[in-house]
Amino acid sequence: RINGDRLWESLMEMAQIGPGIAGGNNRQTLTDSDKQGRALFQRWCDEAGLTMGVDKMGTMFMTRAGTDPDALPVYVGSHLDTQPTGGKYDGVLGVLAGLEVVRSMNDLGIKTKHPIVVTNWTNEEGARFAPAMLASGVFAGVHELEYAYSRKDMDGKLFGEELERIGWVGDEEVGARKMHAYFEYHIEQGPILEAENKQIGVVTHCQGLWWLEFTLTGKEAHTGSTPMTMRVNAGLAMARILEMVQEVAMGEQPGAVGGVGQMKFSPNSRNVLPGTVVFTVDIRTPDQAKLDRMRAAIEARAAEICAGLGVGCSVEAVGHFDPVTFDPTLVSRVRTAAEKLGYSHMNIISGAGHDACWAAKVAPATMIMCPCVGGLSHNEAEEISKDWATAGADVLFHAVVETAGV
Amino acid sequence: RINGDRLWESLMEMAQIGPGIAGGNNRQTLTDSDKQGRALFQRWCDEAGLTMGVDKMGTMFMTRAGTDPDALPVYVGSHLDTQPTGGKYDGVLGVLAGLEVVRSMNDLGIKTKHPIVVTNWTNEEGARFAPAMLASGVFAGVHELEYAYSRKDMDGKLFGEELERIGWVGDEEVGARKMHAYFEYHIEQGPILEAENKQIGVVTHCQGLWWLEFTLTGKEAHTGSTPMTMRVNAGLAMARILEMVQEVAMGEQPGAVGGVGQMKFSPNSRNVLPGTVVFTVDIRTPDQAKLDRMRAAIEARAAEICAGLGVGCSVEAVGHFDPVTFDPTLVSRVRTAAEKLGYSHMNIISGAGHDACWAAKVAPATMIMCPCVGGLSHNEAEEISKDWATAGADVLFHAVVETAGV
Ligand SMILES: NC(=O)NCCC(=O)O
Ligand SMILES: NC(=O)NCCC(=O)O
Repeated sequence: RINGDRLWESLMEMAQIGPGIAGGNNRQTLTDSDKQGRALFQRWCDEAGLTMGVDKMGTMFMTRAGTDPDALPVYVGSHLDTQPTGGKYDGVLGVLAGLEVVRSMNDLGIKTKHPIVVTNWTNEEGARFAPAMLASGVFAGVHELEYAYSRKDMDGKLFGEELERIGWVGDEEVGARKMHAYFEYHIEQGPILEAENKQIGVVTHCQGLWWLEFTLTGKEAHTGSTPMTMRVNAGLAMARILEMVQEVAMGEQPGAVGGVGQMKFSPNSRNVLPGTVVFTVDIRTPDQAKLDRMRAAIEARAAEICAGLGVGCSVEAVGHFDPVTFDPTLVSRVRTAAEKLGYSHMNIISGAGHDACWAAKVAPATMIMCPCVGGLSHNEAEEISKDWATAGADVLFHAVVETAGV
Repeated sequence: RINGDRLWESLMEMAQIGPGIAGGNNRQTLTDSDKQGRALFQRWCDEAGLTMGVDKMGTMFMTRAGTDPDALPVYVGSHLDTQPTGGKYDGVLGVLAGLEVVRSMNDLGIKTKHPIVVTNWTNEEGARFAPAMLASGVFAGVHELEYAYSRKDMDGKLFGEELERIGWVGDEEVGARKMHAYFEYHIEQGPILEAENKQIGVVTHCQGLWWLEFTLTGKEAHTGSTPMTMRVNAGLAMARILEMVQEVAMGEQPGAVGGVGQMKFSPNSRNVLPGTVVFTVDIRTPDQAKLDRMRAAIEARAAEICAGLGVGCSVEAVGHFDPVTFDPTLVSRVRTAAEKLGYSHMNIISGAGHDACWAAKVAPATMIMCPCVGGLSHNEAEEISKDWATAGADVLFHAVVETAGV
């Protein structure tokens, strides 16, 4: 078993970096805080005897050598970046549990045939730079490096420039590494495991996603002196689209979600009807046909809504992944580990996207989940217990050792 | 008659300061551009022989002496501040036409019994600091000076500090001046005069307004892994409130408007359901009972909408004025001037708020309007013709001379 106290202490120490305003974290990707977080992780890895490789996306690969020089490594990873008002565990748990697995191997003198590589993927959250899981996406060949470098944050800063600024442009070609297997341990970020009173989620699938960025073009005009009939009201069109997205998602229950997190009015003045309204619709479901249907319905109905108001409507897909089925062998290895360790478990579908979803394109991959309080995530109040964290890390340890071969 | 070419040249010169991105202006109140605009206006007034007084709200009072030392001044004013994407005429026309009236009096050697005071009111637009017409509101005793100083812009900067920063805190007590009469010349900002093919709007009333700032409190949560039934979706509540405001305004036709220009999601991340959504509803109508009814309906229905979604809802009134009836004597003096000059005219109700609305609380006041192309204002494409500008300034000139006594 791993050392749950040590894992927890590391989690708490990492949470000191980029503190939030309400007990969580704001350690967004490629900020100074991200740089500090990377340095701390690097130091810990040094102390555990790992050697570092960094690719051109800034992803950190920390290797514990194996005994067979020809064996491909087993990767264990997640991300250290957070939402602007993020929790202490989302992503971080997976990286530091990977480190804890290696520390425990050191303690127990375990040597594996395959090397172990603890991985910190750059920009998993997608909060600062859309899309999410950007570095693992380039790694899996889904995005071009140039596409990633040209992504802009809300201040117009480029991903490539910010990566350079914090000093983490590595020399490895992205995706050059080959994986024997990829494991990711993550908090559930949803309510199911806690409600079902299970310690371990055996993740069989991940739902697919579209991020549809709408740009609605109205006519800037005075809110007081412009008669109702003369308005080209992009704000009203937006409101109708939000209601329609809710309807579409509710019409596809169970197993579908839809909502909007990001919104921008221009010029954003109280007495000016907005000239443009930009917002991103986030829709997800594990069912490929449903995902396609939802997207098509939303785009068609939005176009109708806008046409009815004379509002211009353009849509750009700024994030996408299809539903993922994880590797059955690795999935049952996780289940067996939970059973052997005596942890209660159930199959679960990941509601959030993860680097594992892209890794699954280029290697056998799977995930392990632990519950989180009230299903809450992407919220500074995100919480888990030390026991939950430990149980998942134990399962990770066993599954990894099994896969890497002693 | 006034010199229309000179007026137009001054308008074009002022428009060089704080240029917008699409041919209009961004000369928001208490910015460096506002400071530059004030300096140019001050120089022009110096050249015209006016003496300056500045009050603690930074309002500029430029006096042309009268012949009777006991006679109260006739005030002619408007504002030089603009929207973030504002036009070249909204406000500016009224200030520079006031200057042109004085310049023409100088040219023609006209001496008046009452002094003439050309006035540039601070923060009329309310775009940077709510509410609109802030300085004239303090002048009229509607707001406390401390209230005005404590207003915050979106970056958290205080009105009082910004006024100090640009060096325009005057020494006059706000509202200490007494007025014989107040005139304000403004573009219509609506479509009526152009549609009716009239040169002059004789402004009899101004519609009343409420700015209701809603703060909706939802629960920050992951857009992917949070089931639809567990969401406390402040964005959805906002959408329903926008649709409801539209309904309420349409239900009170004709003669009522309602819309939203300012919107803020927090944390504003694509994969986080917003924890808070803040936006301002702007409702207006010339009918007092209707105004009260609309406000009550909107607040009650918003509370219901939010309760239905479990979303917290608080409302703060950040701007308000009741419908205004302008001084009948001054109104007919404007009409008579238009007739004498041979300009087509009609009665009109101001759709926008103006400093004249507050001045009307402490003095006989009225307004003159000229058409604007397509009724468009609060848009960089706002346009008027030189002939329109000139006609209104001629009417202003005659009404002011008549009121000030030769
Ligand atoms: N796990 C997680 O929150 N990832 C961010 C990408 C997403 O929105 O699913
Ligand atoms: N005239 C004008 O646009 N004033 C701004 C205040 C308002 O919104 O009516």
